[in-house]
Amino acid sequence: MDLAYDGRDFHGWARQDGLRTVQGELETALATVLRLPSVAVTCAGRTDTGVHARGQVAHVDVEPDVTDAGQLRRRLDGLLPDDVRVRRVVAAPDGFDARFSALWRRYAYRIADRPEALDPLTRGYVLAWRRPLDLDAVEEASRLLLGRHDFAAFCKRREGATTIRTLQTLAWERDPGGLLVGTVMADAFCHHMVRSLVGCLVAVGEGRRPPAWAGEVLAAAVRDPAVTVVPAHGLTLEEVGYPPDHELAARAEAARRLRTLH
Amino acid sequence: MDLAYDGRDFHGWARQDGLRTVQGELETALATVLRLPSVAVTCAGRTDTGVHARGQVAHVDVEPDVTDAGQLRRRLDGLLPDDVRVRRVVAAPDGFDARFSALWRRYAYRIADRPEALDPLTRGYVLAWRRPLDLDAVEEASRLLLGRHDFAAFCKRREGATTIRTLQTLAWERDPGGLLVGTVMADAFCHHMVRSLVGCLVAVGEGRRPPAWAGEVLAAAVRDPAVTVVPAHGLTLEEVGYPPDHELAARAEAARRLRTLH
Repeated sequence: MDLAYDGRDFHGWARQDGLRTVQGELETALATVLRLPSVAVTCAGRTDTGVHARGQVAHVDVEPDVTDAGQLRRRLDGLLPDDVRVRRVVAAPDGFDARFSALWRRYAYRIADRPEALDPLTRGYVLAWRRPLDLDAVEEASRLLLGRHDFAAFCKRREGATTIRTLQTLAWERDPGGLLVGTVMADAFCHHMVRSLVGCLVAVGEGRRPPAWAGEVLAAAVRDPAVTVVPAHGLTLEEVGYPPDHELAARAEAARRLRTLH
Repeated sequence: MDLAYDGRDFHGWARQDGLRTVQGELETALATVLRLPSVAVTCAGRTDTGVHARGQVAHVDVEPDVTDAGQLRRRLDGLLPDDVRVRRVVAAPDGFDARFSALWRRYAYRIADRPEALDPLTRGYVLAWRRPLDLDAVEEASRLLLGRHDFAAFCKRREGATTIRTLQTLAWERDPGGLLVGTVMADAFCHHMVRSLVGCLVAVGEGRRPPAWAGEVLAAAVRDPAVTVVPAHGLTLEEVGYPPDHELAARAEAARRLRTLH
């Protein structure tokens, strides 16, 4: 399933008792459509509270008699609230796992750092920033963070989880409307990683820190209190990439081993 | 002043007693900043209830001692609610009138007519349409409406006002996200005109009417009940065009004569 949601009124993706979550809404709607007491959905990117998605991917195991994917999509969309939409439902190829088969996740972080780019229509998914940011400085700092590193400096610490990730893209551009848009792509992200990376880069863009500081923070490999975690509402999960069908099962196997490594 | 607003919670541009309007909010904020009992603002496009703007232009006459336009912008933005933003304030050239000096107004109407284009983040300014629309048919019908005509068939009737307008652009495209985006540009628009034009074209795009029907409706020059007025929230005033400074006064003079013609 390809999903899009406005994260504002959700306590993130992951189901939590008594809280409104995307997983909770989706599983409830799916259980209704499939006439099951409960269903369990797995997604590619477990977004935090307030984070949006345009290209979330999720899978669910169903009985082989559920064959009309188009009808399933329409019925789900009819049941779901209008801040989450099901864009596409297809039968998954053998070996597909929305989480572990994924090769990469691509996020965008959007910032309006000049008055001319202020737009009330997009204020739900764009961070308004009062000071102008220097694109060249942000790009210079971003290059220092690319590649395979221990991103512990940018991650909320979790016992027993590795913080080694491969940052494939960290690129910035001014879009036609004057917004500063950051594209962040990696094999996977640890908790708060994108928003901490952007927090570090915003300090550089404002001139509060030199570009080289980004490399120093990374090398220190411990949470730096000078790196702020920027607000969730500027962040959107845009796309998830998967290998060709015949590699899906092997990729899932490899990622499962890697991600649960101690 | 260049203004952007989310029309959802406004009863349109024009000030009305007891209702929340863009003009009302702006004039209140301006009166506070300028320490005046009241001010009168003139805009280029008096948008209806629920219609948005990214490129609204407005002017206000102030005393010559108000010289710091940047400060005026910041103070206004600080006072205004976050669904209206002031993007730019500059001293207007001689002869400038936000309404009568304008050469053209450009609007966009956005439609998500396929599941893959559904996006909760943009649902405030994109119309979700349940049936797919045929871009070729919409474009064919649009061409029949271009030029200088009496658009009475698409206008809410108003005593004593001319409904002759020059439709300069009525063009459609699929944007990268799969939305159908209509660009509508004219010297000026009468009441409900853009939303009636789009209502006519949607009937054609769905296949309920042939493209030639658009020309027949236009030629009849009376309101056709088969033409629906599409919802306001898909419509955004994107840009207003003005002539070079030395032509501003003459253009305003000519437009004032033309627009008030009986």
